[in-house]
Amino acid sequence: MTPAPGSAPASGRAGSPPAGPSADPLDFAEIRRGVEDVLRCFLDERVRDLPHPKARPLVEHLRTLMGSGGKRFRPILCVVGWHAAGGSGTPRELLHLAAAIETFHSAAMIHDDIIDRSATRRGHPSAHHALRAQCTAPPGSDTSTWFGAGAALVLGDLALSWSDQLLYRGRLDIAQLRATHPLLDTLRSEALIGCYIELLATGRHTDDLDTPVEINRLKSAKYTIERPLHLGAVLAGADPAVLDTCTAYGIPLGQAFQLRDDILGVFGDTAATGKPALDDLREGKPTLLLAIAQSRAAPDQRERLRRLVGDPLLDDAGAATVREILTATGARQEVEDLIESHRLRAVAALDERTLPGAAVTALRQMAETVTRRDA
Amino acid sequence: MTPAPGSAPASGRAGSPPAGPSADPLDFAEIRRGVEDVLRCFLDERVRDLPHPKARPLVEHLRTLMGSGGKRFRPILCVVGWHAAGGSGTPRELLHLAAAIETFHSAAMIHDDIIDRSATRRGHPSAHHALRAQCTAPPGSDTSTWFGAGAALVLGDLALSWSDQLLYRGRLDIAQLRATHPLLDTLRSEALIGCYIELLATGRHTDDLDTPVEINRLKSAKYTIERPLHLGAVLAGADPAVLDTCTAYGIPLGQAFQLRDDILGVFGDTAATGKPALDDLREGKPTLLLAIAQSRAAPDQRERLRRLVGDPLLDDAGAATVREILTATGARQEVEDLIESHRLRAVAALDERTLPGAAVTALRQMAETVTRRDA
Repeated sequence: MTPAPGSAPASGRAGSPPAGPSADPLDFAEIRRGVEDVLRCFLDERVRDLPHPKARPLVEHLRTLMGSGGKRFRPILCVVGWHAAGGSGTPRELLHLAAAIETFHSAAMIHDDIIDRSATRRGHPSAHHALRAQCTAPPGSDTSTWFGAGAALVLGDLALSWSDQLLYRGRLDIAQLRATHPLLDTLRSEALIGCYIELLATGRHTDDLDTPVEINRLKSAKYTIERPLHLGAVLAGADPAVLDTCTAYGIPLGQAFQLRDDILGVFGDTAATGKPALDDLREGKPTLLLAIAQSRAAPDQRERLRRLVGDPLLDDAGAATVREILTATGARQEVEDLIESHRLRAVAALDERTLPGAAVTALRQMAETVTRRDA
Repeated sequence: MTPAPGSAPASGRAGSPPAGPSADPLDFAEIRRGVEDVLRCFLDERVRDLPHPKARPLVEHLRTLMGSGGKRFRPILCVVGWHAAGGSGTPRELLHLAAAIETFHSAAMIHDDIIDRSATRRGHPSAHHALRAQCTAPPGSDTSTWFGAGAALVLGDLALSWSDQLLYRGRLDIAQLRATHPLLDTLRSEALIGCYIELLATGRHTDDLDTPVEINRLKSAKYTIERPLHLGAVLAGADPAVLDTCTAYGIPLGQAFQLRDDILGVFGDTAATGKPALDDLREGKPTLLLAIAQSRAAPDQRERLRRLVGDPLLDDAGAATVREILTATGARQEVEDLIESHRLRAVAALDERTLPGAAVTALRQMAETVTRRDA
């Protein structure tokens, strides 16, 4: 195993920068714990320094959300990216960068749940539902519902703001800041604009296959896989070739990640996903799965899909009908095949270039995890 | 005129740092133009580098909002703070810091208008109204309304994200970043938490005078006056005594600023404010003006206020009745007296310390402007 060319660290600071490629396998559970420790300390401090005591339930909700598991794909990939570019260990600045990405993700989840009217997140009430309890108006009233949405909007804004503060707290040097900050901005802009493109397409019942692929590219491929890898890599001073490999691996894997999500959103087990199985269908989420089904459907199937998908009152019987059509048209199998071919393409990208062995092992493992999960 | 002690710049970079106190009077119009140039270039670039062409109407709306005037109190005060701490000129990093504050303000306005259900901002449709035009669902339908709110939510998130990117683009050195970044974070957290405290109190019909004062402290005094001054001042390496003067001036002036806003919200001329005169009353905004009226009102007046304020269908006749009660109880005059006493207290703070003359002149002028405006 040879070190990746150009993997010299951006920082020359003692202690943190890598000396060479890492040899030990990367322990995802340990990375997760490291990032969670940073987040816990940061949020404890936020509670302590609150500008007004009445805002405490807001931050407590964020603490619960951020402490309630989650798969932490993005922070883990950030650390893997660092190792891919020759970094070693998990220095303070890396864990803070990873925690910044995860904090932005919390903001995005809180705001997404408002837009999607999702009542549940990770098996708990979503922010705009939970925060209704802080309102003195009767539960179920318009005032209470509106209050919950407003409070969750503010909480998402706080989390978005704090994602920057976490990066800053990592005490990156100016070269590291110059390398990471514009890229963190890009990650956020791409994710947000992906969310808008999805909103534009929601409930449109189209067999246009390009739009879901475009949405997945921004909201999943770039946001979930490629950019977190890039961020860790540029922190370690990666050269463009390493970033290209991250892209060649990240874009197909991110597409596969989202396709698995879409399948789980319709066929998944609620107990495992923590998300009601009807949400995606009721919302009319513009997935590739549905677009393929539309394009393959017979006229009567197409008509039934149009009637059922996007119906906010869709019941279990209706959802079962949609599942039957998705299976009967072969759309489900086509998506499963796409997931596998994307995964293979991602893994093949790792063979074209010699990255440090620990990073390659971690990237292979991650490719399994994101495509074959049940939650 | 002697230079403020401790006004040495944080930066030793050639070109930008101050040599001594500024002598020429500060030209607010010129500051405004400088900040607007930075914003225009930044937004042009955002449009050019959009991750997806369909997102263009989002950024175009932001460009229209940010280009449509606005009083630019916060960026101007940021520049005044720089001069108060002995800075000179308007170097690149200062204008970018000021533009970062203004960009956050745009995010806050866009999200505030969603929460307040305001249809208008600066005489134009608010973001969540304007962006409905991008939805293919029939205008006036639930889908179109929900789409507008979701699109505005995303746009506010983009603007919030970009406020950091503007700071970064100013090419501050590491000492300047260490001085300003945590304070920008504080400004944002205080403003957002103030917004939440206001949401908690909205429509409560209380004669509690403390809550509006607390809301005004966070949402206006700190956010609009004190923190922008502090940000400019710390960029120039201000010592704690300069920051204390900014606080002693900023907190009372900010209270006065908000009280003027509350009066304009009820008694103002829509043509000048760009905001329908019924919005604050229909929303039941928890102002000190209304709390004082509640505390002074006779039982029948109190009953009428409870019935009318917060009624989303309030008409002109109802608003006229509220205005009569606010005047008859003496609440309006009491608020006018408070504005004047706060203004005097702010200006008096300037006499207790020798700040550079140009800054003092600007601060006196600003005290007039924010308290005696009609828009």
